[in-house]
Amino acid sequence: KRIVILPGDGIGREVTAEARQLLVDVAAALGLQWELDEGLIGGGAYEETGTPLPEETVAKCLRADAVLLGAVGGPKWDSLPGDVRPEAGLLGIRKRLNVFANLRPIRTWPGLMLASPLKSELLEGVDMIIVRELTGGLYFGQPKARVEGGQAVVDTLYYTRGEIERVVRQAFSLAQGRRRKLTSVDKANVLESSRMWREVVNELSAEYPDVAVEHVLVDNAAMQLVTRPNSFDVIVTENMFGDILSDEAAVLTGSIGMLPSASIGGEGPGLYEPVHGSAPDIAGQGIANPLATFLSVAMMLRHSLGYPQAADAIEAAVLAVIEQGVRTRDLAGSNQAFVGTKEMSEL
Amino acid sequence: KRIVILPGDGIGREVTAEARQLLVDVAAALGLQWELDEGLIGGGAYEETGTPLPEETVAKCLRADAVLLGAVGGPKWDSLPGDVRPEAGLLGIRKRLNVFANLRPIRTWPGLMLASPLKSELLEGVDMIIVRELTGGLYFGQPKARVEGGQAVVDTLYYTRGEIERVVRQAFSLAQGRRRKLTSVDKANVLESSRMWREVVNELSAEYPDVAVEHVLVDNAAMQLVTRPNSFDVIVTENMFGDILSDEAAVLTGSIGMLPSASIGGEGPGLYEPVHGSAPDIAGQGIANPLATFLSVAMMLRHSLGYPQAADAIEAAVLAVIEQGVRTRDLAGSNQAFVGTKEMSEL
Ligand SMILES: CC(C)[C@H](C(=O)O)[C@@H](O)C(=O)O
Ligand SMILES: CC(C)[C@H](C(=O)O)[C@@H](O)C(=O)O
Repeated sequence: KRIVILPGDGIGREVTAEARQLLVDVAAALGLQWELDEGLIGGGAYEETGTPLPEETVAKCLRADAVLLGAVGGPKWDSLPGDVRPEAGLLGIRKRLNVFANLRPIRTWPGLMLASPLKSELLEGVDMIIVRELTGGLYFGQPKARVEGGQAVVDTLYYTRGEIERVVRQAFSLAQGRRRKLTSVDKANVLESSRMWREVVNELSAEYPDVAVEHVLVDNAAMQLVTRPNSFDVIVTENMFGDILSDEAAVLTGSIGMLPSASIGGEGPGLYEPVHGSAPDIAGQGIANPLATFLSVAMMLRHSLGYPQAADAIEAAVLAVIEQGVRTRDLAGSNQAFVGTKEMSEL
Repeated sequence: KRIVILPGDGIGREVTAEARQLLVDVAAALGLQWELDEGLIGGGAYEETGTPLPEETVAKCLRADAVLLGAVGGPKWDSLPGDVRPEAGLLGIRKRLNVFANLRPIRTWPGLMLASPLKSELLEGVDMIIVRELTGGLYFGQPKARVEGGQAVVDTLYYTRGEIERVVRQAFSLAQGRRRKLTSVDKANVLESSRMWREVVNELSAEYPDVAVEHVLVDNAAMQLVTRPNSFDVIVTENMFGDILSDEAAVLTGSIGMLPSASIGGEGPGLYEPVHGSAPDIAGQGIANPLATFLSVAMMLRHSLGYPQAADAIEAAVLAVIEQGVRTRDLAGSNQAFVGTKEMSEL
């Protein structure tokens, strides 16, 4: 199997370095050898090549079985024009790999409940997965431009029926493997795109009769995530709503440093990344929490590489480390200790 | 002064009936007489006239000094086409009155901290006001339609520079009367409209040198509202982001039944409404909480009618009632008791 690592910027470099070691150890434990390659993306790529997503990176990724991304961006590049900003590299690789379904699992970590902003009783049994459409909507629709001589501006929320169908199908089939409850989030009382979204969900639900479907308006969903997070199983929504709600949900359980994501699609490789960003303020200090990246590797093993047991082992090891009270973010320099723990747990 | 009341649907009718009495009592206490009129809007208006916003209602409102709205909508009308749904009446009256700035104050009610989903220490000193652009963006931009023979769909996020400027100015001047901190929320790393939004905020900030400005990305704002709600003073954002974030913020402090809103604009009357919806499930039972509507009346007295002391008196009375431990929602039938309390406090 071929795995491409895109470290990106800031702490992305540190956490993917540790994850690379984890991948090597997993391969050894499984008696396999994986071909590991690296590629440029983001601000660093812009500095070296003039673009945040060099074609060479895209080509490498397209030949791979899975891609692991660290994080992109930093204040250094914030004033660049939109099309060469680090984020353009991230949006570009998602689009080029056609990974239209971004899966973000969120669950209570018993050892981290104290760090949560929510009252503990609300956190009992939180275990949801947000499926965010990732390659359409307001992020990519055209026109996206100044108009009327610069006196007005337009962005476009565009979806084809097929784009909605494929991500909704992903969500239904995920729900079938879980608690069989699907919450579709839209703004059907205002947006035409949401009305089509709701139609598609209702149509497809006939094919998944074992999954219970509810429709929730996005403003209401933003409330319910806080007031009853444990009532959700699978949530599916369009790109922009998913960006907002998945980050809101990300802070509920205590640490965004613990959250992995998988972006998957039709045919090509999946793209795996921690939910946290490049955290320029703590970059290079060796204090970044690598656990979200390790858990992203677990998702990669499960969804792209076909080693669910190895995925389970990593998740169990991370859980054990947390239960033991080890805390990266709070303990500067404990990065290496974590990795040691992971290796042990793996072998 | 002329005040038009638009009861709308569901509990909107009950809470505005109580608020009407409050307005009569306030007028008496001030030794004044107000002209109170009513108009149809929403699902009820559709049943009687075939449209959720009869022209007669618009004409009445345009002649008034202020408009008080209950709430619109209900499952009964959910399958109507978009342009005659109750929500179309709400969007229509906002647009026709040109109330482009929706102000939603959110603060900790000491008596209600137990009802909040957040840990108490996070609620210390929460006191923010969200300024949501209300008559532009994705809600109103054209095209908003099925395209490509029904196989695709488009909504349009459109703003003129002037539309952004006027609402941002409102927010700056509000901040000047408060703690002089403005948080502008956008998605400037992805949306062109957000890049213009950020430019406008930066340009105008030169005119308000006493106000400290920060820019926060919408996904990050969704996190920070939960993790550090007391760090915000005035938040300003575009229509769709404002819809989501203001509802998220609404649940932080314990009860959405306590939250008022004011929608104001250039010349015409302001539109005042409780943040909660029509709550069809409890409509007609006399158990709805009228306090959000009373607080909306207070905002009306302050922003449109020029009686800030009367506004203070209502707010103090509501605070007192809550401190005394009275709770509408939890005590079926206590509606009248509240109103009695309000009248007393007023006189
Ligand atoms: C960096 C940004 C473009 C990106 C997004 O909005 O998709 C990020 O917020 C995310 O959620 O992965
Ligand atoms: C009913 C709906 C159209 C409305 C909106 O989205 O503006 C409501 O959610 C609100 O926030 O007042």
